[in-house]
Amino acid sequence: MNLPAEGVFDLGDLGLVSGSTLPNAKIGYKAHGALNAAKNNVVLYPTPYPAQHGDIEWLIGPGKALDPAKYFIIVLDQLGNGLSSSPSNTPAPFDRMRFPAITIHDDVSAQHRLVTTGFGIERIALVVGYSMGAQQAFQWAVSHLGMVERIAPFCGTAKTTPHNWVFLQSLYTALTSDPAWMDGNYKEQPARGMRAFAHIYASWALSQRFYKKELYKPLGFATLEDYIAGFWEKRYARRDANNLLILLRKWQLNDSGMSNGFGGSLERALGSITAKAVVMAGQTDLYFTPEDIEADASHIRGARYVVIPSLWGHMAGSGLNAADTQFIDTQLKTLLAS
Amino acid sequence: MNLPAEGVFDLGDLGLVSGSTLPNAKIGYKAHGALNAAKNNVVLYPTPYPAQHGDIEWLIGPGKALDPAKYFIIVLDQLGNGLSSSPSNTPAPFDRMRFPAITIHDDVSAQHRLVTTGFGIERIALVVGYSMGAQQAFQWAVSHLGMVERIAPFCGTAKTTPHNWVFLQSLYTALTSDPAWMDGNYKEQPARGMRAFAHIYASWALSQRFYKKELYKPLGFATLEDYIAGFWEKRYARRDANNLLILLRKWQLNDSGMSNGFGGSLERALGSITAKAVVMAGQTDLYFTPEDIEADASHIRGARYVVIPSLWGHMAGSGLNAADTQFIDTQLKTLLAS
Repeated sequence: MNLPAEGVFDLGDLGLVSGSTLPNAKIGYKAHGALNAAKNNVVLYPTPYPAQHGDIEWLIGPGKALDPAKYFIIVLDQLGNGLSSSPSNTPAPFDRMRFPAITIHDDVSAQHRLVTTGFGIERIALVVGYSMGAQQAFQWAVSHLGMVERIAPFCGTAKTTPHNWVFLQSLYTALTSDPAWMDGNYKEQPARGMRAFAHIYASWALSQRFYKKELYKPLGFATLEDYIAGFWEKRYARRDANNLLILLRKWQLNDSGMSNGFGGSLERALGSITAKAVVMAGQTDLYFTPEDIEADASHIRGARYVVIPSLWGHMAGSGLNAADTQFIDTQLKTLLAS
Repeated sequence: MNLPAEGVFDLGDLGLVSGSTLPNAKIGYKAHGALNAAKNNVVLYPTPYPAQHGDIEWLIGPGKALDPAKYFIIVLDQLGNGLSSSPSNTPAPFDRMRFPAITIHDDVSAQHRLVTTGFGIERIALVVGYSMGAQQAFQWAVSHLGMVERIAPFCGTAKTTPHNWVFLQSLYTALTSDPAWMDGNYKEQPARGMRAFAHIYASWALSQRFYKKELYKPLGFATLEDYIAGFWEKRYARRDANNLLILLRKWQLNDSGMSNGFGGSLERALGSITAKAVVMAGQTDLYFTPEDIEADASHIRGARYVVIPSLWGHMAGSGLNAADTQFIDTQLKTLLAS
């Protein structure tokens, strides 16, 4: 099949972990660079919350680890992000809050189908991902042992921790507390709930010291209030509320230990991974904590655990801070050279 | 004046930092023990958010540092808590959201008037407080140098940090996003907003490891969901929404550096303190961080900085975990013996 470099791929019917089938499922993507003759230069780069493929290109470019002159890099839209099958773009009876529950496993199923059936690829040099993208990278390594040579999950865990669940639940409650939400059948976005959502997110996504040192100023915001409104409120206001929540439920459910054959044991699932890995944590990340990420890495034989020395909290992996981006890029270069 | 052991004291008109005057202001309190002849056994114990005086008696008792057989302990209701002058109990034109902005300085003014005019006390052996109570303890030491012999602020800072402000702002936005809030003129409590408020609080008040280790189980909650609903939702549902928000604004505004004579310099204000102090931080507190509390303590000449070794996050100071309570009590005994 000769797919365009950027598009939406028809997956056909997609069976889900929940037991439901999503008819005519779709996956969005954008490819950078060219597949070589040996078909061994493939990098998969799934999206984090709540991004679409155009939002995370900062990691790709000439001279970077993900250099399109060298690698065939496919940025993959996760299910629910508004480009792949999502509450916002799926017809009845699976529209809006009637969209079935999805898991990170379902993303990997969809992505695997695109990669193998669509692109004819059998071998993956690297799966790299940030945050929910890291969840997908872990799952790729567990689900497709022989196929994945390397993974580089950063600022994410292989299983959502209870505290992270509580944080996400507060986002869910805040958004759905807005009566304009109308159980997902809103005509206009539930703007009040989304504003509360954005404020909660702002408090968790950066570190305490980020705010003390006013590190938002180099981003062009003169005051704290400007930053909250100009960055965080805008960040979510442009997303569909149902999509935000289906992604959030997926995140809450994430557990690589629930993969086939491991009986719910995360340790055994991660222990089965044969891919080489660099597993990175943001030093001041408040919800994907270094402690939790280090525990994941400790179960993977071929993993190196690395801490991104940053005051940017979870946003260390967002591409907004040049020093963090440089650090991550260097780690990826080392991994790809191995 | 011979005041009852528990009551509400008429302060008369109370001039506020904001420039407003609160007419017929009131302060709630409860005294434990008896004032000795020398009037030198007085302990002040102001309330934290969103407590009333009956909620924090866990620190008081026979054999404890705050032993009523030895000390005359006055538990002081902070302004806005529903017993002292508050949006919920003040007549028009200062009812509900028309209640004037208040600060921690105003609390100390009100408390000072009760203590001197009401009880005829000129000397304070100790001001001890948790969280917003710690804010009041710092302020007492700055505002009444010669009068306060010791302070023991725990799990609180002398000035609200920007990150803490953002966390509080998310609570504010979540609660006021509920249209039932009606700009403070609600007939029934804005239950949806208060539920979101509770969920946000739950995510911040404990540590990540508290949740991972399921430390809520000894409190009698079988599941995480039970704990969130049975503890956190109930905790705020019984408070008045306007009161919750006026207290929250006070917390956001807190700054001991804004005291008279220090030109906004927190360092100079804290540097002026002559009281002996033990300043305690919860090791895993996410919004009154050890780093921030240690910085406060470093500016106070007579201060000893101590970390409560606890996984209970901010709740290390709440009296719910016996080991933490024991630790705090021991520190208070050492301070009172000095």
